Amino acid sequence: MAPSVAVENLNPKVLKCEYAVRGEIVIHAQRLQQQLQTQPGSLPFDEILYCNIGNPQSLGQQPVTFFREVLALCDHPSLLEKEETKSLFSADAISRAKRILSTIPGRATGAYSHSQGIKGLRDAIAAGIALRDGFPANADDIFVTDGASPGVHMMMQLLLRDEKDGILCPIPQYPLYSASIALHGGTLIPYYLDEKTGWGLEISELKKQLEDARSKGIDVRALVVINPGNPTGQVLAEDNQCDIVRFCKNEGLVLLADEVYQENIYVDDKKFNSFKKIARSIGYGEDDLPLVSFQSVSKGYYGECGKRGGYMEITGFSASVREQVYKIASVNLCSNITGQILASLIMNPPKEGDESYAAYKAEKDGILQSLARRAKALEDAFNNLEGISCNKAEGAMYLFPQIHLPQKAIEAAKAAKKAPDAFYALRLLEATGIVVVPGSGFGQAFHEAFMAEYRD
Amino acid sequence: MAPSVAVENLNPKVLKCEYAVRGEIVIHAQRLQQQLQTQPGSLPFDEILYCNIGNPQSLGQQPVTFFREVLALCDHPSLLEKEETKSLFSADAISRAKRILSTIPGRATGAYSHSQGIKGLRDAIAAGIALRDGFPANADDIFVTDGASPGVHMMMQLLLRDEKDGILCPIPQYPLYSASIALHGGTLIPYYLDEKTGWGLEISELKKQLEDARSKGIDVRALVVINPGNPTGQVLAEDNQCDIVRFCKNEGLVLLADEVYQENIYVDDKKFNSFKKIARSIGYGEDDLPLVSFQSVSKGYYGECGKRGGYMEITGFSASVREQVYKIASVNLCSNITGQILASLIMNPPKEGDESYAAYKAEKDGILQSLARRAKALEDAFNNLEGISCNKAEGAMYLFPQIHLPQKAIEAAKAAKKAPDAFYALRLLEATGIVVVPGSGFGQAFHEAFMAEYRD
Repeated sequence: MAPSVAVENLNPKVLKCEYAVRGEIVIHAQRLQQQLQTQPGSLPFDEILYCNIGNPQSLGQQPVTFFREVLALCDHPSLLEKEETKSLFSADAISRAKRILSTIPGRATGAYSHSQGIKGLRDAIAAGIALRDGFPANADDIFVTDGASPGVHMMMQLLLRDEKDGILCPIPQYPLYSASIALHGGTLIPYYLDEKTGWGLEISELKKQLEDARSKGIDVRALVVINPGNPTGQVLAEDNQCDIVRFCKNEGLVLLADEVYQENIYVDDKKFNSFKKIARSIGYGEDDLPLVSFQSVSKGYYGECGKRGGYMEITGFSASVREQVYKIASVNLCSNITGQILASLIMNPPKEGDESYAAYKAEKDGILQSLARRAKALEDAFNNLEGISCNKAEGAMYLFPQIHLPQKAIEAAKAAKKAPDAFYALRLLEATGIVVVPGSGFGQAFHEAFMAEYRD
Repeated sequence: MAPSVAVENLNPKVLKCEYAVRGEIVIHAQRLQQQLQTQPGSLPFDEILYCNIGNPQSLGQQPVTFFREVLALCDHPSLLEKEETKSLFSADAISRAKRILSTIPGRATGAYSHSQGIKGLRDAIAAGIALRDGFPANADDIFVTDGASPGVHMMMQLLLRDEKDGILCPIPQYPLYSASIALHGGTLIPYYLDEKTGWGLEISELKKQLEDARSKGIDVRALVVINPGNPTGQVLAEDNQCDIVRFCKNEGLVLLADEVYQENIYVDDKKFNSFKKIARSIGYGEDDLPLVSFQSVSKGYYGECGKRGGYMEITGFSASVREQVYKIASVNLCSNITGQILASLIMNPPKEGDESYAAYKAEKDGILQSLARRAKALEDAFNNLEGISCNKAEGAMYLFPQIHLPQKAIEAAKAAKKAPDAFYALRLLEATGIVVVPGSGFGQAFHEAFMAEYRD
C-alpha cells in the first residue's frame, strides 16, 4: 500500500508556500550550529549570528525592565501580597500589575479570555492608539493576536476565495504575505518599490499592476502596505500615504497596513503616521475605507518577539463581516494572555512622573539610538564595499543592499544550481557564521529575471 | 460601487465554519454580562457562569504555584540575582528557572525560538513522554504550539487538498475538528459514539463509515480520536485502543490522537495510555503508523488555558513530509515562549525530594479530587432530574447528558426557530446565568434527525 501520508498527497498550497526567512539558509545554519556544539573549532567561526529576521533579543538586546516586572507580577500574583516585593519591583510596576489583574475576570491570567482579548486590555490599547493618532479608537475594533502574523493569516483566510482573488503586495516584501496568500490559495499581485528613489511607492505603479491584474480576471481584494518598510527600511511620506488611502477608497480595496515598525524611525525628517490617522485627517470615516492596522510587541524598541503579542485594529468592516472575523479568532479560543498584557503595555508605557519613567526612558532611548547607530554603520559599510550599494536606513530593522556579483560568481552559482544571491548568502554563512536572507526570498525582481535568463 | 468587503464576497469556507463553544449562546451571555455591569440587579442572577468550555481558572481554580514561580523568574531573570528572591520563591523553582534559561540561547525569553520550540524544552518534553510511556521519545518529533488548536489546524492544512479528502471524527465531537475541517475545505466523516455503552467507540462503526465514505469517492486521510473524550468524558480501554491502532495501520490512516485530557481520569478502573505507547506495545514502529499526539497546558490539573502552551508529537512521517510541517510552523515563526516553558514544566513537574514536591502534590491532588467530586455530583444530579440521563464521568472535564424535552417545549423551540437543545440552553442562560453548549453544537445525531423532521 502507498504511504498514507507522502509529499505527493499533501495539500498543494502547502507545498507551494515558501518562507525564505526561515528557509534553506536558516536550516543549514542550524546544522552548522549543532556541528559547533558537537565539534567545537571545526568551523572558521565560533557562533552563528542570526540576522535572517528581526530578533533583537537573540542578539543581546535586553528587555525593557518595566514590561518584564509587570509580566512577572501578573504571572505570579501572590507576589503582590508579599512585603519583599516592594523592594524587588518598582512601585508603578506593582500598581500597573494590580490594575491589569483587576480588569481580568477573577484575576485569572490562566483562563481563556474573550476571543478578541481581555476587554480591559483592549481598552488600554485603544487609549494608546487614540493618544498616538489624535483620533478616537474603540476596544471593539481591537483583536489581540499572538504577534502580527496570525492577524495577517486571518485576513487572508477571510478575503481569499480562490486563485481569482488577488492581494497587492510590495516587492521586495516580507514573505509572510506571499506565504499566507499561497497557503490560502489566492494570487499575489506584485507592485514594485523603486530602489532608485529610496524604495518609493508610486501610485502609478499600483494602478498599472491593479489594471493588469483586473484585465486577467483577478478580483483584487486588498492592498498590503508595510510602513516602515520590511525588508527595505523606507518610511512613507504623509502625502504618499494620503494618495494610497484615496487609491484604496476609489478602487474598493481593503487597506492592510503592516505598521509593526512604528517606533523604528531613524531619520529626523520622517515620522510615523498610522494609515488610520491619515484616513481620518483627510475626512474619511468608517464607511469610506475598510482598514486593518497590524501591530506587534516583537518590533519597536521592545523587541519582545518570543512573547507573541500583537493586535489588529479593524475599522470600516460591516458588523456581519466582523462577526466572521470573530468566528475565525474564536476557533483558536484566544491569544496568549502574557502577550495580551504586553500589547497593552507597549501602547501605554510609563509616563513622566511614574517611578519607572526615567529608567524606562533611558532603556528605550538607548535601544533606539543603538539601532539607529548600527543601521547607519551598516549602511555606510555596505556603500564602501566593492560592488554593493544600499539605500538610506530610515526605519524598521533592515537594509536591503544591491550586490553586483562578478560573472564568475554568477557562473559558480549556476553550476551549484542556486540563485546567485542565495549562493552568496550560503558562502557568507559558511565563511563567517552570519545568517542573512537572499533578496530573491523577498521576491526581488532580479531573481525572476535571472531565472528566466539561466533556466535549464 | 458595491462594498469591497461584504459577507457575500468572503471565503465561503469561513462562512461555513461553525464553532458552537464560542457561538450564539456565548455571544448572548457576553451581552447579558455587559447588562449586569451597566444595570446591576436587572437580571435574575448576579453573574454569568461560563461552562461552555473547559476553562477552570475562570471558575476559581488556582494555578499550581511551582509553575507560576518558574514563569515569573523566566519573565524577569534579573530577579535571580537578588537576595530577596530566595525568600519569595522555592529553591527548586529558582534552580529550574536557571536550568531553563541556560538552555535558551542568550537566555533570551524575548527572542523568537526555533520554529518547533526551544531545543532544550523539547528535550524536557520528550523525556517526560518517555517516562510516561516507557518508550523513547525524540525532541525532533516535538512541535511546541500555542495550545493544541494550532497543531490541529496545521495537520488539517497539511492533509486536506479539497472536499474529496475526508477526516473521520467522533460524534459528539469537540467542534474544533469540524471547524478546522470546514476552514480547510475538507469533508468530515462522522463516526458515532454509542451513548448506550458509555460512549463506546466500535471498530465496526469506524469500518462502516470509512467504507461508506470511500464508496462516495472520498479519500479518507486520518482518524481523529479524543481520549479521554471531549465532550463525552469516556476513557478508552486498552484493547479498544489496540484495535484502533491496527485499524489505522490496515486502512492507511493517519491517527490524530487528541490526548489533552491525559491527566483527567476520575475512575479507579481506567488509566490513560497514549496511542504511541499502545502502538509500540503491539510492536508497531515508525514505519507502521503515522501518528500525531496533541497535548496542551490548558487541561489536566494545570488548567493553564490562558498561557496557550502545548505540543504535538509526530511519529511515522517521512522526512520530506515533516519538512512541510516545519514550513507551516515557521510561517508563524514560533509559539509563545511562556507557553513553551509551561509545556516543559507540565511534562516534568517537581519530583519527590524537591523542595516544592509536597506543596505541588497537595495542589495537584486537591484540584483533581475536586474535579472528580464535582463530576460525580453533577452526574448524580443529572440522573436525578426529570427527563435527564447521563453516562458515567470517567475523565476529561465534561458531561454530555441526554435531555428528553416535552412536546410542548419542542413546539416552543420550533416557534422560536431554534433547535430544542439550543432553546433549552438559551432559557437556562436567561434564568440562571449558566452558559452551556447545546449538544447539537457537537454534531450529536439528534440534531440532524430533529431538523429533518421539522424543517420548514
